[in-house]
Amino acid sequence: MSIRLPSGVRDFLPAAAARRRALADAALAVFEAWGFARVITPVFEHAEVLERGLGEAARQAAIRFVEPGTGEVVALRPDITPQIARLVATRFADTAGPLRLCYEGAVTRLQAELGQREILQAGVELVDAPEPDGDAEVLAVAAATLAGANLPDAQLDVGHVAPARHVLAAAPDAAARAALVAALARKDRAALRAAARALPANVAPLAEALGHLAGPARDTLDRACALPWPADVIAALAQLGVALERFDELADRPLPALSIDLGDLRGFAYYTGMRFAGFVGGAADAVLRGGRYDELVGRYGRARAAVGFAMDLEAVAQAQSALGVAGPIAAKGVAVHGAGAAALARTLRAAGLRALVQPHAPDDWPRWLADAGLDAALVDDVAIHVDGTRTPARELLAVLLPKI
Amino acid sequence: MSIRLPSGVRDFLPAAAARRRALADAALAVFEAWGFARVITPVFEHAEVLERGLGEAARQAAIRFVEPGTGEVVALRPDITPQIARLVATRFADTAGPLRLCYEGAVTRLQAELGQREILQAGVELVDAPEPDGDAEVLAVAAATLAGANLPDAQLDVGHVAPARHVLAAAPDAAARAALVAALARKDRAALRAAARALPANVAPLAEALGHLAGPARDTLDRACALPWPADVIAALAQLGVALERFDELADRPLPALSIDLGDLRGFAYYTGMRFAGFVGGAADAVLRGGRYDELVGRYGRARAAVGFAMDLEAVAQAQSALGVAGPIAAKGVAVHGAGAAALARTLRAAGLRALVQPHAPDDWPRWLADAGLDAALVDDVAIHVDGTRTPARELLAVLLPKI
Repeated sequence: MSIRLPSGVRDFLPAAAARRRALADAALAVFEAWGFARVITPVFEHAEVLERGLGEAARQAAIRFVEPGTGEVVALRPDITPQIARLVATRFADTAGPLRLCYEGAVTRLQAELGQREILQAGVELVDAPEPDGDAEVLAVAAATLAGANLPDAQLDVGHVAPARHVLAAAPDAAARAALVAALARKDRAALRAAARALPANVAPLAEALGHLAGPARDTLDRACALPWPADVIAALAQLGVALERFDELADRPLPALSIDLGDLRGFAYYTGMRFAGFVGGAADAVLRGGRYDELVGRYGRARAAVGFAMDLEAVAQAQSALGVAGPIAAKGVAVHGAGAAALARTLRAAGLRALVQPHAPDDWPRWLADAGLDAALVDDVAIHVDGTRTPARELLAVLLPKI
Repeated sequence: MSIRLPSGVRDFLPAAAARRRALADAALAVFEAWGFARVITPVFEHAEVLERGLGEAARQAAIRFVEPGTGEVVALRPDITPQIARLVATRFADTAGPLRLCYEGAVTRLQAELGQREILQAGVELVDAPEPDGDAEVLAVAAATLAGANLPDAQLDVGHVAPARHVLAAAPDAAARAALVAALARKDRAALRAAARALPANVAPLAEALGHLAGPARDTLDRACALPWPADVIAALAQLGVALERFDELADRPLPALSIDLGDLRGFAYYTGMRFAGFVGGAADAVLRGGRYDELVGRYGRARAAVGFAMDLEAVAQAQSALGVAGPIAAKGVAVHGAGAAALARTLRAAGLRALVQPHAPDDWPRWLADAGLDAALVDDVAIHVDGTRTPARELLAVLLPKI
């Protein structure tokens, strides 16, 4: 039998693992600087409990299996947000909000085209912080997280479910609703116009407008507010405008590009207010998604407002690779060989360097050093560098241990 | 339906999560200082592939399920070592050794008494480094890892499979072998004497000796070598003696207590040479286990010597809690409320502090600060501390931002 991995999961060799670890650490450092406290949740739990907090798409993406010990059905988490919601409703039930929690870890999703896929995620949840302030804060943390990814052209694309919800609620049947959703997803204005004919005369122009209510934030919001929406949609758009102003005050400089798209329905069924996506150069699709889901925590027994996001660390890592962004640089590392090697390696480690004793000389020092991710070997009184050059050992030691 | 977790898995709230993260980071820092490069492997893979590299006990502990996409049987990893062996035999097949790899992550085991259990593990694998030098190096890394756990009474208990293997091979049948194994596991000398009667006259005294070949390293090895073992066992014991001498040279100071136990059969079927366990104050059982398994990588198609260990981070965390060892201390954190809060929070974050804007004042600042893990709130010109005291805001700012 061949030694292969299931589709959609992979190994990360040292350089790839270091990049992902550095990205996770950078995201967690941003979250913690903004006052979010890290929690760790299990990689699987009872399917019924997990699925309460999932949208339809994520529910279908959950990998279920029977727990051998009890015969109960459990599922690998396809998302960490419902686990945080469960914690907030139970272990944090008596803690006054706002609560600021964050996480990092692997999730597993069954994806029709891709087979299953293991994704490394990092994200935050802000609980008991109503709009507009809670929305502004989470957007600001998302902006700082994108900035920490060290990629050009960071952009936040912000929407709100209220306008589309109003339009879709006016559809006479499921087929008409599906036609509207499909046309908006493809941004197909002709199809949208055709689908809008099924709507009442006062709603049809609003449906058509959703197809072009996308662009720079202030201008797009102004155009949206000039349309004849009912009062609750106008109020929601006004709240979104205030959230974006507060975001400008709160967020670290430089501010990312910020655009509005009121026709993006992704996660529509899951979110209850603002929703947003984060983009960076090198990645075609969003690397970060989030929004407000005020009904989520209530599914675990205690209604609390919540807003958050998760970043896909693998997507960011691939964008960094695509654009040639350098991975993290490890501390200088040396192999020591020959008399006195053990004591010298100890001294080097005590100075914060990576140092190991190599009892047997490899056939090809430079190649072996390159494979091991080391900079040089100290072989008696000679330093053999990874590029093949040789210098006196004492010269290298003078650089590595300047104080000795 | 109740909101409960499957048996054997749990959530970690902020203080517990921070302790586990700090332990994992400390272990990885030790591994990397000793030249080991971190790799990341998936949380599940094909059961058949994973189980090739597992001992009998771990094989029974693997949680298997059918991959929904393909109908193939996969298993949650009960151990990361076989995944590293697979990598070494495949992705690193053309890399000249020695290879030094390390890892950290969750493994899941089905345990008869406990239900399943999720364990956070960190460990190393050293490949192509024969005994005695490879054994000495891995023991030295284990000692440094134990030292990094910040617990008293670190101890390494070292054994070797050769003496017990010689004794068990002389048993006339499976029942006699089982009686010897059971007596050794219980350290029951009377039962051992009875079981030894089934052995040939020249082996029986050796079997009885295994029951008391435990104690301080040099003395125990000397006593063992004085017995009439065959030449291959004497050679193995001599190699172990050399490994312990090299360990003394290599290891960081202070050296941990080191003892020998040649009657400990744990992992006997899995290891091929030296085996060892690491103990710390506060934990009744070993928190770290390892040894040499020169046949493991070969099960993935390419024979290579290998020696390594894994530490159970949860066991170490519980020992720390039991002994009252303080968890990691987060950077000072403050909430800012009132006019100019956004700009002040930005300045504090830029200075390396945790700072968030709290738009609405909670009912009870000190209690809320304690729950949020923050030190103080800056409310206009007053600093409200987590202990309830109030001081002028400028005094706290002078401490937090001494340069401004």
